[in-house]
Amino acid sequence: MSLIEKHHQVLERAILANKERTYFSQYPENPKAYAENANAEGLLKFQNLMNTDFSELIQDQPLRFEGEEISPYLQVGLGIRYPVFADKIVVERAKTAFKGWRQLSPADRAGILIESLDRIKERFFEIAYATMHTTGQSFIMSFQASGPHAADRALEAIAMGYEELSRFPSETNWVKPMGKFDLSLKKTWRPVPKGVSLVIGCSTFPTWNTVPGMYASLITGNPVIVKPHPKAVLPIAIFIAELQKVLTENNLDPNVCQLAVDSTKFPVAKEYVAHPDVKLIDYTGNSVFGNWLEAQQILGKEVFTEKAGVNSVILDGCSDIKAVADNIAFSISLYSGQMCTAPQNIFIPETGISTPNGNLTFEEVTQQIVASINAITDHPKMGPGVLAAVQNDLTAQRVKEVTKLEAKILVESHAIVNEEFPESRTASPVLLQIDSSNEKLFEKELFGPIALIIKTKNTQHSLELAKKLASKHGAISCGTYSINQDVMEHIADEMAQVFVPVSFNLTGPIYLNQHAAFSDFHVTGGNAAGNASFTDPNFINRRFVWVGQRYL
Amino acid sequence: MSLIEKHHQVLERAILANKERTYFSQYPENPKAYAENANAEGLLKFQNLMNTDFSELIQDQPLRFEGEEISPYLQVGLGIRYPVFADKIVVERAKTAFKGWRQLSPADRAGILIESLDRIKERFFEIAYATMHTTGQSFIMSFQASGPHAADRALEAIAMGYEELSRFPSETNWVKPMGKFDLSLKKTWRPVPKGVSLVIGCSTFPTWNTVPGMYASLITGNPVIVKPHPKAVLPIAIFIAELQKVLTENNLDPNVCQLAVDSTKFPVAKEYVAHPDVKLIDYTGNSVFGNWLEAQQILGKEVFTEKAGVNSVILDGCSDIKAVADNIAFSISLYSGQMCTAPQNIFIPETGISTPNGNLTFEEVTQQIVASINAITDHPKMGPGVLAAVQNDLTAQRVKEVTKLEAKILVESHAIVNEEFPESRTASPVLLQIDSSNEKLFEKELFGPIALIIKTKNTQHSLELAKKLASKHGAISCGTYSINQDVMEHIADEMAQVFVPVSFNLTGPIYLNQHAAFSDFHVTGGNAAGNASFTDPNFINRRFVWVGQRYL
Repeated sequence: MSLIEKHHQVLERAILANKERTYFSQYPENPKAYAENANAEGLLKFQNLMNTDFSELIQDQPLRFEGEEISPYLQVGLGIRYPVFADKIVVERAKTAFKGWRQLSPADRAGILIESLDRIKERFFEIAYATMHTTGQSFIMSFQASGPHAADRALEAIAMGYEELSRFPSETNWVKPMGKFDLSLKKTWRPVPKGVSLVIGCSTFPTWNTVPGMYASLITGNPVIVKPHPKAVLPIAIFIAELQKVLTENNLDPNVCQLAVDSTKFPVAKEYVAHPDVKLIDYTGNSVFGNWLEAQQILGKEVFTEKAGVNSVILDGCSDIKAVADNIAFSISLYSGQMCTAPQNIFIPETGISTPNGNLTFEEVTQQIVASINAITDHPKMGPGVLAAVQNDLTAQRVKEVTKLEAKILVESHAIVNEEFPESRTASPVLLQIDSSNEKLFEKELFGPIALIIKTKNTQHSLELAKKLASKHGAISCGTYSINQDVMEHIADEMAQVFVPVSFNLTGPIYLNQHAAFSDFHVTGGNAAGNASFTDPNFINRRFVWVGQRYL
Repeated sequence: MSLIEKHHQVLERAILANKERTYFSQYPENPKAYAENANAEGLLKFQNLMNTDFSELIQDQPLRFEGEEISPYLQVGLGIRYPVFADKIVVERAKTAFKGWRQLSPADRAGILIESLDRIKERFFEIAYATMHTTGQSFIMSFQASGPHAADRALEAIAMGYEELSRFPSETNWVKPMGKFDLSLKKTWRPVPKGVSLVIGCSTFPTWNTVPGMYASLITGNPVIVKPHPKAVLPIAIFIAELQKVLTENNLDPNVCQLAVDSTKFPVAKEYVAHPDVKLIDYTGNSVFGNWLEAQQILGKEVFTEKAGVNSVILDGCSDIKAVADNIAFSISLYSGQMCTAPQNIFIPETGISTPNGNLTFEEVTQQIVASINAITDHPKMGPGVLAAVQNDLTAQRVKEVTKLEAKILVESHAIVNEEFPESRTASPVLLQIDSSNEKLFEKELFGPIALIIKTKNTQHSLELAKKLASKHGAISCGTYSINQDVMEHIADEMAQVFVPVSFNLTGPIYLNQHAAFSDFHVTGGNAAGNASFTDPNFINRRFVWVGQRYL
């Protein structure tokens, strides 16, 4: 049985899910759905990788081995070193691998790629520990985000890719009636991949943000070079190693997908970007580099970015303020605000918000949010579990520095105790109150556990500020609480004009931060927070070109 | 009955045609399929428009009236003046019209737009004469290209747009099993148009090259400003006038689509491009301005271009050299080579080409092409009918100047007699033979009735040159003649890598130059000849953004 025969049903189901956008997941997010000993084995495997040279990649003749990952939990280096190659060699190998890969049918490519995900599934726990000890995420987030959720996002890209590649007939008979006779042409169409694809990873979500571009480029026939963040290599290295094994088993060149590790000291991304054969670039990270990358489109490169954004919560009304405040506090606290979807600016009218039982004052709302944040932070188990660890010192420093701003400090940040990992780099959320006229203070992304309460004139004023910020600086998410349908529709419509998705009245175990594969488009691609979306048709179609042939 | 009910079947049929890419045409290309007196009435209407101020547009308070169209057949000005507006006013009106237009359902927009095409159909003959006397095309090409073929291309864009806009559900219930309970969210999605759309027309195909971008932007909810070439306004002015009438009849703001005329002396395109509210730009024309426009993408604008290209014919073999030479000669001669799809470089191996009855020498092939060109040029009826007129003096001059190149002149260009229009600006094709090492002479587009025969070592050499030119300078079409299947597949594959469609062994009444709506992607968008394609999914999807909302 060929791999596509084996995975045909999964592919069909994923294509349907992409269309219907109802709930679908191929890879269970609950660790308990996996073998009983999988967790312990995964931990052991991760531990055995520490202080070794990573040897699973099928990439010949490295120049040297390098690695600089540090566990935010242990605050010691992982000691794992990865093979390093000259960028020109890596691109040459990608070009060599290109022909065999592009000549495979889309179905055969889909079979290989889905098989790789099934193999990776066997290593979800190992990837989870690798993610924990590079990003500082909690175990459960590390497991879900880097394992099943990432694999679902990869499958989503494979399915959307397969659908687009199959969209037009590979051959047809075109018959034009010419009056006295018919003119007949055989026509063929082929989706032609654009060329070598570079995927640049980030330090906080090393697989979740990398695999959509990686698998989107692969399904459309492009060879891929993944350049991870030097501080978060291992999770994606395992993905690539498993894919390379599947490629090799199927007599394909493993260089179809290569890992290209660099170091903080000698970053190599710009060399790859400048290479004339690199045609596709995916990137997650800061806006300065992202904007530079987007400018490379002048050179005929297709660039897909996810950059910084400023996310807002608009409070207009609610029926249960505690449930609302708990939800917002959780969104702010989760992974110490190091998610691109985390809210930063909370807009509350000076006149308060409406409830079915009358108004709540600005102070009442604010106090409830303060209480909800403290309830998480001060909880001995929930605190370290939700906040997890801070990935790097810059973020930890930023949390300290914001207290110097011209603002009222509502909640101070402090280190929290993590009994399992006493050396963890932690910082509980800081909550500041800022005047709405002081736009300079809240218009920037303050990455990390930093939230701002902004007192506005009314909900329309809140909306105007949220919209303006999204328009100028981008936004990936927006939360709104209201009990007025007209207000909700107005906010949905207005925020849609700056291409921001709005989540209404989320309480309980569903958060602004969460974007589900097959259903939520992650980043719309329409504002300054990024020019691409996981996974809309553009994310696929910009990677290849339809070319037709006609035969008389 | 609503307009979409009226046109529902046409829309469905066009959507199917886009998918199947078999022959489909909604608007008959044969003038005889129309009312018997339609031609005479159209001519009269055109004549009545001459030396008047064009008053059909529903655009208030022009600054002044201007016009500078000159008939290439009569070599006199048409005397038609069009209303001129300040660019800021036009953009403001577009923004005002935007809200009502974007809030219509895609189906309602499709109904309005297809209705406009049906109204325009009533004016195909008038548009044909308007096209003849601005572009210099023959009557039959003017009729077909500016009337039915353009309307088919517009319908193609409407259908592809409607399909993409309907791709995801507007609302769904998302239910995630959480173990002990189900988490349920209402989710909605809306395709949000990007903003004001500018469509910049060209002087040779004033409707065919303009309406795809215009209707693609309109169906996706964007208001459109059409800036035609100042020498070819009338054909598209009639399109826009009819659309504005349909909009007004349906209580919509006619400024949803505006005509923005400028002059050679005071061009206004750059002002529109620079306007921050202009988000989409479609363009057909020279590469210098096209490349500048593409660079504007740094400012967050989506730019769709069709620029210059260098098209090749590769001769490897054939079974009927006269049929082949006749076909090539016709492609070169048609509308005096002023089609972006016309071949320029004809690559013939020095060893000749193969036939089922042995080889033909380079000289034999060349002589047959010379003979076929002369047969068209010297034919008293076919000559003026095929060659038509030269749109502008620059093209006429270029034909003279190329004879100064370091090349052997195989066929000289000369004026031809058009008995109906003795004042026509005409130039029969010039055919030069150039050495394959003299790349500088044949790597540029030599727009007009200019063809080059290039003697190569062999077919592989011909292919390498054609591929290199396409890669460096772009190409929109490629003709290949061969009787060897392996050679054909090799050429198809190699040219596909530089994103050039290849037509094989065309003889008889089907030409390289012709790209049919609903079937042939016009320009692939993958090489320097342009970054967009009529009409692939990118041509639609880059004009709007999917934005989701979630409601607990």
